Amino acid sequence: MAERYLVWLEWPEKCFRADAKALRFLRSLAPQGADIVRVRGERAFLRELPRATHAIVWSFRREWWALAGKLRVLATPGAGRELVAWREAPKGVKVHFGGFHGRIISETVVGFMLAWAHGFFRPEISAADAGPWRRTWPRTAIDAGCSLVAGTRAVVLGYGRIGRAIGEKLEGLGVKVSGFTRKNFAALRESAKTADWLIMALPGDTGTDDMLGPGLISLLPRRCVVVNVGRGNAVDERALVDALAKGRLAGAYLDVFKGEPGPLAHVGGGAAGGILDAEPSTLPPSLVKMPHSSAFCDEYLELCFKELKDEGLL
Amino acid sequence: MAERYLVWLEWPEKCFRADAKALRFLRSLAPQGADIVRVRGERAFLRELPRATHAIVWSFRREWWALAGKLRVLATPGAGRELVAWREAPKGVKVHFGGFHGRIISETVVGFMLAWAHGFFRPEISAADAGPWRRTWPRTAIDAGCSLVAGTRAVVLGYGRIGRAIGEKLEGLGVKVSGFTRKNFAALRESAKTADWLIMALPGDTGTDDMLGPGLISLLPRRCVVVNVGRGNAVDERALVDALAKGRLAGAYLDVFKGEPGPLAHVGGGAAGGILDAEPSTLPPSLVKMPHSSAFCDEYLELCFKELKDEGLL
Repeated sequence: MAERYLVWLEWPEKCFRADAKALRFLRSLAPQGADIVRVRGERAFLRELPRATHAIVWSFRREWWALAGKLRVLATPGAGRELVAWREAPKGVKVHFGGFHGRIISETVVGFMLAWAHGFFRPEISAADAGPWRRTWPRTAIDAGCSLVAGTRAVVLGYGRIGRAIGEKLEGLGVKVSGFTRKNFAALRESAKTADWLIMALPGDTGTDDMLGPGLISLLPRRCVVVNVGRGNAVDERALVDALAKGRLAGAYLDVFKGEPGPLAHVGGGAAGGILDAEPSTLPPSLVKMPHSSAFCDEYLELCFKELKDEGLL
Repeated sequence: MAERYLVWLEWPEKCFRADAKALRFLRSLAPQGADIVRVRGERAFLRELPRATHAIVWSFRREWWALAGKLRVLATPGAGRELVAWREAPKGVKVHFGGFHGRIISETVVGFMLAWAHGFFRPEISAADAGPWRRTWPRTAIDAGCSLVAGTRAVVLGYGRIGRAIGEKLEGLGVKVSGFTRKNFAALRESAKTADWLIMALPGDTGTDDMLGPGLISLLPRRCVVVNVGRGNAVDERALVDALAKGRLAGAYLDVFKGEPGPLAHVGGGAAGGILDAEPSTLPPSLVKMPHSSAFCDEYLELCFKELKDEGLL
């Protein structure tokens, strides 16, 4: 049976959309003679689905399985499982979630940590832009608090593929890393007490709501900086903002939030009243926000397709 | 002869000043019975200098050698040679410049590069702070232009200890690094043409004035990002700002400038009219400025003293 690849990769963000270049790349990896069909909407997708041997999609509803009689591979670039009805997949269909994100997100997290430790996010730096820098030359404004990342201790919560990719990169830079999965969260308490960094890379579906709340915060040293590149549900935003405002924690980089706009809005619930609804001027300056972009990468779909090829799924 | 360490490490920036903690650390490394004398000004320094066997200083004038009859070691934390009259040192005096900076500066440079590549410095991010992020949620503002640092090409100009430390860290992250010293600047042209990053870590005294000017800029790809953590003299600031404004280069991080305020003001000359004198709003948003702080580090003097110990100079 000839392969027929059905590609439905539309998304508001450019790097997540299958454009002509991405399709050419997919074609270069696919077997000779394979058909590659790109669709841009649900209707066209469902019309094509019965003939497809492979589907590469962002989301897949469980009622669609009935239409997918020839499907052998359902692949999604996503690492999170929220948008694909994988539990209902018929036997014999291989469901694949993207495993390449660690390569991107580990660079993002390590970049934040190094840049943070070496003063790039200090509010004093942007404040110095009130005039020409010869006048403000803000050296003595940031002459304390910069430090080596090598030799520090990082606790990584969520030690799946993404967490481990972060841990490996940090170890390469001389950081002492302790990784925790759900199985050993109990042992976390001791490590938390000496953590210079708490890095959260938890999936959104594991009962981790508000895991970083007053309890865990009270264990962390004041010098600790928190990173969340997992899902927004895992952080009690009010408790975190409060801790930052009081200097109980040194800083935070949040890539994900409670009640994010868009297709992941449901993850973790907790819509209004959180960080996303706050006037930025009311948030502590030691909070660095990014718009769920830790995996943004112009090579995103290339990495995805290469992985499918490497795993024998093309 | 009993060792007598004369420590004169005053500097406007806290991390470069010998405080009580740094002195305790020095004492812990020094031989038993050694005297450690800390002075805070030139007069006291010159009064103590004749009895010192070791001096640890930021600057040393050539006329002071006449007073330094017992000196065996003159050490400075500085990596640059501008402030110490090393050429005039009598035979038998070991002059030591700090070689530990690469450990700090390499983290700073790599942090900038990773954070830049993953969107942290995009002006769209701070622009989104015009209101609550639920409204601005700036994903589609930065959905292109983020990319992996692994697999990119970096050209490092100035491949001494600092340049090599940067190069080694980058290689560990999968970057292809080409390092150039004065001896092989001629070969630079070819590498420049494919550079994703141009990293300058040149000393200030090597005839490198305006090395990054219209000529070198014209060789670099438009996607290239420039970093200067060496000395300000090496960059033609007008040409760089022009190239950034026109999109001829993708971005720049300058840690050093022409005519910096302070003790290095003389390096590279060119006082007024440069980046330090410009209204920040007139500078391209793809320029990241830092106040000669790439080596700021709370552990700075500890690293310095440890190095002296490791090299048998304490």
